Amino acid sequence: MKFGRFEHHGKIFYGIVEGDAVHELDGSPFDNHLKTDRRHALAALKTLVPCMPYNFYCAGLNYAAHIEWANKRTGGNRKLPEKADVGYRSPNALIAAGETIVIPADSPGPVQFEGELVAVIGKKARKLSEADALSCVLGYTLGNDLSERTWQKEDRTLWRAKNCDAFKPMGPFIVSGLDPMNLTISVRVNGKTASEYSTSKMLFSAQHFISRISRYMTLHPGDVVWLGTDGATEPDLKDGDVVEICNDQIGVLRNPVVRAKA
Amino acid sequence: MKFGRFEHHGKIFYGIVEGDAVHELDGSPFDNHLKTDRRHALAALKTLVPCMPYNFYCAGLNYAAHIEWANKRTGGNRKLPEKADVGYRSPNALIAAGETIVIPADSPGPVQFEGELVAVIGKKARKLSEADALSCVLGYTLGNDLSERTWQKEDRTLWRAKNCDAFKPMGPFIVSGLDPMNLTISVRVNGKTASEYSTSKMLFSAQHFISRISRYMTLHPGDVVWLGTDGATEPDLKDGDVVEICNDQIGVLRNPVVRAKA
Repeated sequence: MKFGRFEHHGKIFYGIVEGDAVHELDGSPFDNHLKTDRRHALAALKTLVPCMPYNFYCAGLNYAAHIEWANKRTGGNRKLPEKADVGYRSPNALIAAGETIVIPADSPGPVQFEGELVAVIGKKARKLSEADALSCVLGYTLGNDLSERTWQKEDRTLWRAKNCDAFKPMGPFIVSGLDPMNLTISVRVNGKTASEYSTSKMLFSAQHFISRISRYMTLHPGDVVWLGTDGATEPDLKDGDVVEICNDQIGVLRNPVVRAKA
Repeated sequence: MKFGRFEHHGKIFYGIVEGDAVHELDGSPFDNHLKTDRRHALAALKTLVPCMPYNFYCAGLNYAAHIEWANKRTGGNRKLPEKADVGYRSPNALIAAGETIVIPADSPGPVQFEGELVAVIGKKARKLSEADALSCVLGYTLGNDLSERTWQKEDRTLWRAKNCDAFKPMGPFIVSGLDPMNLTISVRVNGKTASEYSTSKMLFSAQHFISRISRYMTLHPGDVVWLGTDGATEPDLKDGDVVEICNDQIGVLRNPVVRAKA
């Protein structure tokens, strides 16, 4: 099932996407819902961020080749993490597919993409075993964990590096029934493939992260767990670029890039 | 004005607190609202977390004496921060005044309080000057930034150290019209004063933090900015304790402590 959140003539609703059509839901996929006979052309709707999370978890370092590449680029010496310690992002930064990524006027740069698989929590859960961890997942979407690399290095926290307004594209849809450990995520910049990797390379599986979080924290419907990125995240993004995070089954998270005027 | 969020017979509503009485609001203090003539005894209501933030900012290091104390305790050598770089906490951890702090069964400890002033954002804001920064603030409440010190030291992020379920008591009420730079915050453990400090000692003012955040991020109604703690945060908390964060004008954020059974 492919769920989306849409706006049409000022009304906001969830729908099920089937090809080029959207069947409006009464209710939301996070709760009781009914598929109605109100049918829209997908192209006639504005696609919104598929959910607004209160708790926005991210795996941070979860692929070896990305850590190796980052060490090479920065002259760093970061080791592979020994534990699945999650970090946080902030919902102010979320934008939908089609919306514009804005590089702040005073960003020293570079600003880079990080294409990620995102698990969307569908129901309240606590203390799940790894075997049961995916039972609380509604489905999967895509995220672009945009990163301002100078601020990432110089600030004490990741606030500006990762959470400026419009730095967290997420979408386009939430797709249920996928195996999160066997998906191909690719990134295109201006139509050209810049990165491609398999989620089978995660250091800590989606199951492990979700189980581990749930040991200490209640997972809530609409919470999201971004699962990290692999490999290099170049070329650097600049005004006028278009960046796409792609998966065959979830779709394309496409966003234009502008640089704010001072 | 003193705003609270309450539950009564399954109904959730905002109210204005006047002495021992609560006047129910139609609407919320974050939006258009009307004071109704529905009046309740405060003691008859369950006090809830005063707002649920999507964006949960925290100052982290914002008082010199706390940094000096932490360095002494841990043998660390952390310098005073040169910039107001905010961190994040996560709403899963919020509990209201009166609710129970739970120390996880596997916490090596110590778990300590951190009594903080919290600015509650009342309206959408972006790019505020320091002079205008407080114009977006609805009012102030109290927070207890509970911290598991072993996890704070050993984990790569602060996820378990700061964000376990029930690790973020906030409340009891949101009070408007206060000067955030001239308040006394005190902490009592089992009725005995454990800490007392003036918010005038902040390294970076509330105005500075809010202005700086708003340079990169849109502030939204209900967002909160926790402004840090000063001094020592002892004694360590244990099963059976009662911890109170107090301010004369905001009230008392009182929470019992239990340790979870393995």
